[in-house]
Amino acid sequence: MGEMTSQNMVVMLMSLGILLGVARILGEVAQRMHQPSILGELLAGVLLGPTVLGNLAPDLLAFLFPMQGPNAVALEAVTSLSIVFFLLVAGMEVDLSTIWKQGRIGLKVGLSSIVLPFFIGFVVAFILPQAMGRHPGSDPLVFALFFATALAISALPIIAKTLMDMGLYRSDFGMVVISAAIFNDIVGWLVFAVILGLMGVSPGNSNHILMTISLTLTFAAVILTFGRWMIHKILPFLQAYTQWPAGVLGFAATLALFGAAFTEWIGVHAIFGSFFVGVAIGDSYHLRERTRTTIKHFVSFIFAPLFFAGIGLKVNFLTHFDLFLVVAVLIISCSSKLAGGMVGARWGGVQKKEAWAVGFAMNSQGAMGIILGLLALNAGVIRQRLFVALVIMAIVTSMLSGPMVRLILKPARKRRLQDALSSRLYVRNLRAVTPREAIHELTLATAEPAGMNGDLLEKAVCDREDALSTGIGRGVALPHARIDGLKRSIVAVGISDSGIDFDAPDDKLAHIIFLVLTPTQDYSAQLEFASEIAGLFQDPGMLDRLLKAKTYTDFLSAIKSIPGE
Amino acid sequence: MGEMTSQNMVVMLMSLGILLGVARILGEVAQRMHQPSILGELLAGVLLGPTVLGNLAPDLLAFLFPMQGPNAVALEAVTSLSIVFFLLVAGMEVDLSTIWKQGRIGLKVGLSSIVLPFFIGFVVAFILPQAMGRHPGSDPLVFALFFATALAISALPIIAKTLMDMGLYRSDFGMVVISAAIFNDIVGWLVFAVILGLMGVSPGNSNHILMTISLTLTFAAVILTFGRWMIHKILPFLQAYTQWPAGVLGFAATLALFGAAFTEWIGVHAIFGSFFVGVAIGDSYHLRERTRTTIKHFVSFIFAPLFFAGIGLKVNFLTHFDLFLVVAVLIISCSSKLAGGMVGARWGGVQKKEAWAVGFAMNSQGAMGIILGLLALNAGVIRQRLFVALVIMAIVTSMLSGPMVRLILKPARKRRLQDALSSRLYVRNLRAVTPREAIHELTLATAEPAGMNGDLLEKAVCDREDALSTGIGRGVALPHARIDGLKRSIVAVGISDSGIDFDAPDDKLAHIIFLVLTPTQDYSAQLEFASEIAGLFQDPGMLDRLLKAKTYTDFLSAIKSIPGE
Repeated sequence: MGEMTSQNMVVMLMSLGILLGVARILGEVAQRMHQPSILGELLAGVLLGPTVLGNLAPDLLAFLFPMQGPNAVALEAVTSLSIVFFLLVAGMEVDLSTIWKQGRIGLKVGLSSIVLPFFIGFVVAFILPQAMGRHPGSDPLVFALFFATALAISALPIIAKTLMDMGLYRSDFGMVVISAAIFNDIVGWLVFAVILGLMGVSPGNSNHILMTISLTLTFAAVILTFGRWMIHKILPFLQAYTQWPAGVLGFAATLALFGAAFTEWIGVHAIFGSFFVGVAIGDSYHLRERTRTTIKHFVSFIFAPLFFAGIGLKVNFLTHFDLFLVVAVLIISCSSKLAGGMVGARWGGVQKKEAWAVGFAMNSQGAMGIILGLLALNAGVIRQRLFVALVIMAIVTSMLSGPMVRLILKPARKRRLQDALSSRLYVRNLRAVTPREAIHELTLATAEPAGMNGDLLEKAVCDREDALSTGIGRGVALPHARIDGLKRSIVAVGISDSGIDFDAPDDKLAHIIFLVLTPTQDYSAQLEFASEIAGLFQDPGMLDRLLKAKTYTDFLSAIKSIPGE
Repeated sequence: MGEMTSQNMVVMLMSLGILLGVARILGEVAQRMHQPSILGELLAGVLLGPTVLGNLAPDLLAFLFPMQGPNAVALEAVTSLSIVFFLLVAGMEVDLSTIWKQGRIGLKVGLSSIVLPFFIGFVVAFILPQAMGRHPGSDPLVFALFFATALAISALPIIAKTLMDMGLYRSDFGMVVISAAIFNDIVGWLVFAVILGLMGVSPGNSNHILMTISLTLTFAAVILTFGRWMIHKILPFLQAYTQWPAGVLGFAATLALFGAAFTEWIGVHAIFGSFFVGVAIGDSYHLRERTRTTIKHFVSFIFAPLFFAGIGLKVNFLTHFDLFLVVAVLIISCSSKLAGGMVGARWGGVQKKEAWAVGFAMNSQGAMGIILGLLALNAGVIRQRLFVALVIMAIVTSMLSGPMVRLILKPARKRRLQDALSSRLYVRNLRAVTPREAIHELTLATAEPAGMNGDLLEKAVCDREDALSTGIGRGVALPHARIDGLKRSIVAVGISDSGIDFDAPDDKLAHIIFLVLTPTQDYSAQLEFASEIAGLFQDPGMLDRLLKAKTYTDFLSAIKSIPGE
């Protein structure tokens, strides 16, 4: 101790707090706008860094995020650890078996979505190094290779997230894209590791380069075969005989740190090691879902925002903004990636329209392109203006991906209970004592948002209720009806503290009454809501929590669970 | 960037990996010996620090854990963040309502277990400052106050853990001890914050001291009243309208960082701020159990081991070992704490025997005494030999606590399925096709470990089975019997891939057959095992996982869940 003064400590804690807080807030805003949260997190760094804060209050910037001294080191230590753990999680999402299951189409898409952008990127960067932002001191070949890789690599975590958001993750389309992205990821990182080896050394020392490259490939091969096998043997042992989940968590983190230290030591970057450790660990079915989520949540929601916001601190995005370069990178990257994805998909026998969607889905460059750019910037291979262009390219392609796939495939939007509810449809204290009275109160609340006659709605629901009562047990009732001419599904919720007898199979009174109105032509909506509601009450504490809720916000808070899990 | 070289990065990642790995391994060893894992974690630091590694390989120590330069700063940044988050979690365990519920006894125990040790500690340290290890440069009054607080504060997390391990957490006894420990914790930290204010400033500047103290008390008061109320309002809002659990996780971490920055800034230590933020957040019932565990697991199993192992790096425990001081601190601390706990318990009307147990339970000083000692050491208030004595005192009192309480109260050891199982009692492939054959195979396996005649056991189980068949559904059967003369409960497990018809209510064939044999005189054992087994199969994926298990280790790994949750 004693290396950091109390003043250093204050600055460190404050700067991390501000970075995390702003990144999370803007991440949420991005989510609201149906964009990946990473966009908001990057923007947080741009606001807090030299681009904005540095212009408005340079002294404050220098105080919070100094470029030198103990605080600079501390921030770098924390963001480096963050990225090491983030790549561990990114690696854990890679499911090698998906590639085998999906078979050839995925491999073809994966291959051509690497080869085409790599080839085009390499040619452009090799012919026009100056225009593309090569750092004057760097080797033109290394620069061209880096540029090619930066265009070739896709962002698996973002692609997975986008597909999940659209409910396409488990579809055939989703599996083709994911397996291609996994293939792309692994090959891309291997190629990149080789290039990192080239970046790190002086041009003459070719023995050293060969050494680094062969060590890197050996490391990847060993960890994906022997290492994976060992981990698969060790995990059940840890789960059986150590404190759970301490043993597994500690093991994963320790292994990631060692892997990272090793790859950093052989001359490629630390993240390479933790990524492959993540692949090897995540691939074992012995890793429990719950352990996986503990690591994933903590890392994705605390470490990752810190890292991505930290990127914006490094560069002034205004002074290094070069319109020509930004547009050029964007065009080359999008066209080559789109072409790569499409060619692969058509080659694999995918229909033309879907092939376009594959192309756009693979086009997400998000996180990975930025990480690559940052390493190249630090290694002195590229100029800041290319870094800025790469970050913008990563952002734009990630933003385009979801909307374009949606436009082409027009997937049915996943119906979620939450979208059908609203505070106007929430009746905290039902006066009703009979099912008919409850239905009356609730249909009254729905009449206006439905834009329909309340009596008509009430009659439809009552007719249904007369046919078969809708108490489903555990204190819940689900009166419902299909309504002709209804524009969108509507769910009203009534709470009755005293309970209403909806004739449930378990003879319990209903305290929570969901009134579900769905358009007649939307066949599956009713069933989907019913199963989502039934799923909620699998949790034995749910009823109690809902009865405790005083406001609609409390209610929503209680039914909220992890999206997509 | 550029503040840390690649070499620095390698060293940082390696040193953190080694620290975490060794700490987790020794933490597990401590658990095996029914001791808190913190003991193993501290020992890891002693092994890796100047005490052992420094003697064996000083160059390696200087390489891995340098005292100066970027790596020293990086390690300090990471361990400081670790302790800030650890105190957030420790604060979250404080449930203010417990104090009110438990009422007067808890307050009396809490009060006297602070006042007595504080008073005795103060007197001794004020009269004999030299002998007690005051640093020559420090104010005798501040030193005496620090020493008094170090003796007065208990370690809530360790006490809670010890009670949980003994199954006493929810008992009346447990609630008295916990509410006393919570009271002790909050008052102790407040007193300590005041003393930290005194430590940090030059003796003459009394205005500044008053300022620090009043700011500290105001901070604590505001965060525990207004802050707590605000958090209680904000949490459901975050849960309802942000990505779950990202919103809540980010909010808690950001708030902890700001709280820590604030208290560090006003002149008391950072951990004070995150502790009170933790109390305020943890107290809201809107904080979901799952969010709580995500933070708790990641912090307890990754950050905490790093911090506690980091402590051992700071001091040479051999050269600064002062037998007289160690024994003196141990005697003063144990006797005053025991007396404090007992006096309070008797005052509250607790029986004499139980009062002894209360005294021993409150005697755990574990984590907190060490954190206090470290701060005093860094502030130049105490000598290294007192720090060593405090660490040893914390370890010894924490080690004594569990065994002494167990010796006095003789609580029924909680029967756990895992203790009744063993690899010899695991039959992976039952040949049986009927229940009788299955019972035959399984009783055969139990005969030797039970030390009884197999035919006799078989008859008892079959008689029971004839009376009422024991298929409980979901693919599980539970043949059982109470056996005269059986020494301890025994559970054998048989797996049948083809399934056996145990006449279950859901008509499913049984694939997992638990044969439960309990001693006749142990009335509740049978029911406890049955409910633990039924609980396991609440998890819909459990059957599948158990059928996949190839070995006993796989089986154990699959049924393992979080202890005490």
